[in-house]
Amino acid sequence: MIFDLVIIGAGPAGITAGIYAKRANLNVAVIEKGAPGGQMINTSEIENYPGFAKIGGADLALEMFNHGMSLGVQYIFDDVVELKDGKLKQIITKTNSYQAKAVIIATGASPRKLNLEHEEMLSSKGISWCAICDGPIYKGKDVVVVGGGNSAVEEASYLAAIVKSVTIIQNLKELTADKKAIEILLKKENVKIHYQSTVQEFLIDENNNLIGVKIKTGNAQFKTIKTDGVFEYIGLKPETAAFTGLRILNDYGYIPTDENMATKLAGIFAVGDVREKQIRQVVTATNDGAIAVQSVFKYLETWL
Amino acid sequence: MIFDLVIIGAGPAGITAGIYAKRANLNVAVIEKGAPGGQMINTSEIENYPGFAKIGGADLALEMFNHGMSLGVQYIFDDVVELKDGKLKQIITKTNSYQAKAVIIATGASPRKLNLEHEEMLSSKGISWCAICDGPIYKGKDVVVVGGGNSAVEEASYLAAIVKSVTIIQNLKELTADKKAIEILLKKENVKIHYQSTVQEFLIDENNNLIGVKIKTGNAQFKTIKTDGVFEYIGLKPETAAFTGLRILNDYGYIPTDENMATKLAGIFAVGDVREKQIRQVVTATNDGAIAVQSVFKYLETWL
Repeated sequence: MIFDLVIIGAGPAGITAGIYAKRANLNVAVIEKGAPGGQMINTSEIENYPGFAKIGGADLALEMFNHGMSLGVQYIFDDVVELKDGKLKQIITKTNSYQAKAVIIATGASPRKLNLEHEEMLSSKGISWCAICDGPIYKGKDVVVVGGGNSAVEEASYLAAIVKSVTIIQNLKELTADKKAIEILLKKENVKIHYQSTVQEFLIDENNNLIGVKIKTGNAQFKTIKTDGVFEYIGLKPETAAFTGLRILNDYGYIPTDENMATKLAGIFAVGDVREKQIRQVVTATNDGAIAVQSVFKYLETWL
Repeated sequence: MIFDLVIIGAGPAGITAGIYAKRANLNVAVIEKGAPGGQMINTSEIENYPGFAKIGGADLALEMFNHGMSLGVQYIFDDVVELKDGKLKQIITKTNSYQAKAVIIATGASPRKLNLEHEEMLSSKGISWCAICDGPIYKGKDVVVVGGGNSAVEEASYLAAIVKSVTIIQNLKELTADKKAIEILLKKENVKIHYQSTVQEFLIDENNNLIGVKIKTGNAQFKTIKTDGVFEYIGLKPETAAFTGLRILNDYGYIPTDENMATKLAGIFAVGDVREKQIRQVVTATNDGAIAVQSVFKYLETWL
C-alpha cells in the first residue's frame, strides 16, 4: 500500500495537514508515537486559539484529533526512526515501514528543562516555557526568567510589559542575546538580572504552589527569590533525530523550508515547531499544515 | 487618546491580532465597518478550522468575536476611509479619527461575483468561491468552474481530484493561467472546457436548489449544463481603497509584506486576505494576526 502522503506527528500542524489532505481526497496517514496534540497536551490552559476563549490544552488536542477522525483521517500509532528519500519515500518505524509519494514532517520541538524536583508537577502551573502563551496569567505579578540567550532576553522584555517584575537568572557572566535585544531589555525599569547564577531548587508551599526559587550566585552563595512564576528559556529541542541522514537540518536541528513549507528535498515538507521559524504558536502550526498540503497537492500533480 | 495599536478589520486575522495584542497588554482597538467575521460570515459551513469539526461560518465568527470581547478587546464600529502615515498614524473614519503608534491592516478581500439572479440566495448553498473550503461537499458530484485564470485553473485541477466532473466556463478563447497549470488541468480526464462562453443564468428547482447553469457559447447559442455546484473564479477584490495614498499596494491592490507581516512603511503591518499571498484560509489568517502582533511589539519597543 502506497500512501499519497504520510504526515509524521499529530500536533496541531500535523492534524491540520491531515484534515486538509483528507478533504483534498488524498490517501493520507498521520503517524504519532505518543498522545496526539503535541505541546498542547503539556499546556494547562490555552487562551489564544481563536474561537476557544479558554480551553485546556489536552481538551483542544482532543477536539483537533477528533476533528481529523470525523473526516476519516487514518492515524497510525508508531514511532518513526528513519525517513528515506527517493521517488517513493520510505518511512521506517519501530514496528513497520510505510511508503509514500510525499511526506510532511510535523514532529515538533520541546523545551529543554532544568530537571529539578517539582518541575514536572509545576509544569504549566507555575513553570512555563512560553511567554506569549502564559505571560498574561502573571499580570501584575513577579516572575523569574531562566536563561540569557535571544529567547530569554526577548521574552523577558515581553513579560516586563505585562508583569510587575522580571528577575533573570543567567548562568554566564553576561547575556548572550543580540546587542539590540539586550539594550531594549536593560531599559526596562522592572527587570533585574542575576549573572553567573543557577536555579538550584523550586520552592513550594504546603499546597504545592510555586512560591520561589533558590539560586546559587557567582560567589557560591545561596539566595531565595520569591516569585509567582518561572519561565525557562534554556533552549528548545527539535524532534529530528530520525531525519539526520537526509541532511535537511540546520545547525540547531531545525528544518528550514520556503514559504510553501518545502524542504530542500522534493516531496518532503516540514510544518509547525520543527521548522526554522520565529513564532511557535498553535495558530502558526495550523497555518503551516494547511499550506503544506496545497504544496503536496501540486507536487503530486507532476509525480509520475 | 493615542492607541498603541489600531487594527482595521475584524475578520479572523484582525480578531486574532486583537487577542494577541490584548494579552500582550497593548492599548488596542479593532475597527470594523460591518459584521465581524470577514468572509467567514458568507460561508455556510466551515469544516477545516481545526477543533471545530463542522461549524457555521457565522457561528465561528461569533465565537472569535466573543473570544476577543472576553479578553477586553475594544471594538469600534466605523468605516475607515483613510490611513495617514507618520510617527503617529492617523486613522480617519466616516465619523471620527484615531491616533495609533502602529496599525495592522486586516481588511480582507472579497470575491468578484457574476451579479446574476439567485446568486445571493445560492451563495454557499450551490455557489462557492473557495474550492479548498467547499470542494469536499461535492465529492462524487458534477461542478462548474467559472473563469480561466490561475485561480480558476488551479482550483479546477484541485476539484477534479475530488468531484465526478468539472466543466469550465471561460469567456475568452483560451485559458490565461500559467502554461504548467494548464498542462496539468488538461491531463485530467473528468474536465471539460467551454471557451468563449459566459454564464447567463443560474437554474433552480422548485425548492430553490441549484440544478444547472445556462451559458451562451461562442457562436451565440444557449446551452444548459446540469450541475450540483458552481465555483466562481473571476477575481478577488482586496479592500484597500482607504490605503491607496500610502503607496503600499501591488498592481492588483493587495499589500505585500515580509514574513513578519511588515509593509514597506514602518509601523504599518498587513495580515490575512488583504496580503499578497498564495493561500487564503481561516488558519492562514489567524497565523498572520499572531505574527503581526509580535512584530508590532518589537516595533513599539523602539518607538519613542
